[in-house]
Amino acid sequence: MKILYYCEGDSGNLLSALQARLPSHDIIEWSADAVIAKSEITAAIAWMPPEAFFDDLPNLTHVYAVAAGVDHFMKTAGLPADVDVIRLTDAGMGQQMAEYVLYGVLHAQRQMHEFQLAQLEKHWAHHLDARAATDTRIGILGAGQLGRIVAERLALNRFTVSCWSRGQKKLPAGVTSVFGGEALPEFASSSDILVCLLPLTVETTGILNGDLFKQMPRGAFVINPGRGGHLVDKDLQDALDTGQLSGAMLDVFHEEPLPDTHPFWEHPRVLITPHIAAKSLVNESADQIADSIACVARGEQPAGIVDRHRGY
Amino acid sequence: MKILYYCEGDSGNLLSALQARLPSHDIIEWSADAVIAKSEITAAIAWMPPEAFFDDLPNLTHVYAVAAGVDHFMKTAGLPADVDVIRLTDAGMGQQMAEYVLYGVLHAQRQMHEFQLAQLEKHWAHHLDARAATDTRIGILGAGQLGRIVAERLALNRFTVSCWSRGQKKLPAGVTSVFGGEALPEFASSSDILVCLLPLTVETTGILNGDLFKQMPRGAFVINPGRGGHLVDKDLQDALDTGQLSGAMLDVFHEEPLPDTHPFWEHPRVLITPHIAAKSLVNESADQIADSIACVARGEQPAGIVDRHRGY
Repeated sequence: MKILYYCEGDSGNLLSALQARLPSHDIIEWSADAVIAKSEITAAIAWMPPEAFFDDLPNLTHVYAVAAGVDHFMKTAGLPADVDVIRLTDAGMGQQMAEYVLYGVLHAQRQMHEFQLAQLEKHWAHHLDARAATDTRIGILGAGQLGRIVAERLALNRFTVSCWSRGQKKLPAGVTSVFGGEALPEFASSSDILVCLLPLTVETTGILNGDLFKQMPRGAFVINPGRGGHLVDKDLQDALDTGQLSGAMLDVFHEEPLPDTHPFWEHPRVLITPHIAAKSLVNESADQIADSIACVARGEQPAGIVDRHRGY
Repeated sequence: MKILYYCEGDSGNLLSALQARLPSHDIIEWSADAVIAKSEITAAIAWMPPEAFFDDLPNLTHVYAVAAGVDHFMKTAGLPADVDVIRLTDAGMGQQMAEYVLYGVLHAQRQMHEFQLAQLEKHWAHHLDARAATDTRIGILGAGQLGRIVAERLALNRFTVSCWSRGQKKLPAGVTSVFGGEALPEFASSSDILVCLLPLTVETTGILNGDLFKQMPRGAFVINPGRGGHLVDKDLQDALDTGQLSGAMLDVFHEEPLPDTHPFWEHPRVLITPHIAAKSLVNESADQIADSIACVARGEQPAGIVDRHRGY
């Protein structure tokens, strides 16, 4: 099989890892000048491809996106409407995401933000008491592959964990499933710490907004390693400034890198990380794409086929 | 049995919790003016008692210290040389300590300190890569009750964990025991993150010093929730300033509260918490003291009897 390849930011490591795993396939690196027998291409592996990448590929049936969140990818100019897009479903990201969220949860629960603010004033804030982990309720928006791994890790660390999703889900032991739009306000009201791990779709854009923050317990904390588009920035700022929320840890932003002029950079209650919560790992990504290609070759459905209507 | 009681900082909660658990005993609150039938006192429960507390107690045989670290308590003026001192061995502190150390470990492993420094400069440090948890070697100095609980928690979170102690110990699954003074330099050299959970004794005073830091991998991180006396402050500062260490998280200090003039307050690579890593919890402390008193009444040895020669 001939597979067309273009991944922005790959210095050759991912391409080599894929070639090692797919020795009987021909992986052809795309460039504007390359002479390519386009009618022989039946699959593509891509991230941030230029528009011309998809030109004249009459027999293309499968596109493997090198990312778990494909909100951006699905809007790629030139992406044919009639091909199956397969996204990454974990690729080493689950455990990284679990670490990231666990850090943010401990940061909030153990009042580390308060201690760091106190340090700036040389104030010995010994009086602050932490809530026990078992009494700290974590609400995770999203119950996909990443959400489940994160939920499981938090439960393992004695936190009280619920996941909210559109439909009911079977979740790891000790994790409660809450579902449906009507349940969202009550879900928020019982979340001391809210974590957004939803895909970005029309329905979830702006889901982290002032109405939701108002439902949360006073002094609650928000962690967003989802997408910048989930958050209404101004509403977060207001909720922090009134004390409705005590802090936020954000990994994703409407514009990345976050512009110098954005007020989050200097907000004392916002912890900023530069979209590093879960990087897709080269070997794990190559493993998963190779498995999916083998799966399709056997005539089976691989995991991670994107439902274009849902958007993930 | 008549038990004399004095705990600095207790607003009555601990005393009530003890009375509820020891209804057949008479717990007498000490004060300088109280009229007390001193010859009837056979046990005492105390924290930071004044010197006169121990005056004229000819039949005192057991003293229950309301703390796990008793380096300070064993130097209490007036403490008789011939009584058994029983310290707390967990009392809810183990899980708190596990959370605290896990936070510090994630802070170092996931480069959170670098991201926080980058935020001050509005710098998008997306290029920084984290080491995988499984490739991050945590060395815990100490393998007592707290050390074991912390080690187990870190192993559960996929870190590679070793504990160093004087003699060999049987440790939780997945945790390596390293022992003896001669093994210490190599132990340090294989610790990306070093955690001090030793008791403070003559041997362990100043154990976190420049010689030890020099053995560690360049860029290593130190977490000290032990005692301020374990650390040579100046040596830590030097190791941070030369880049030999990348950061430190400190909960305990030579003088507490940490004086305003101490350079750690303003050091960009020192994270200060105000001796909150593990507070003894009222109910858990009362449970453990009541259990120990029942144990002594049955003629058995309770856990946590202090060996005055070792100092813990």
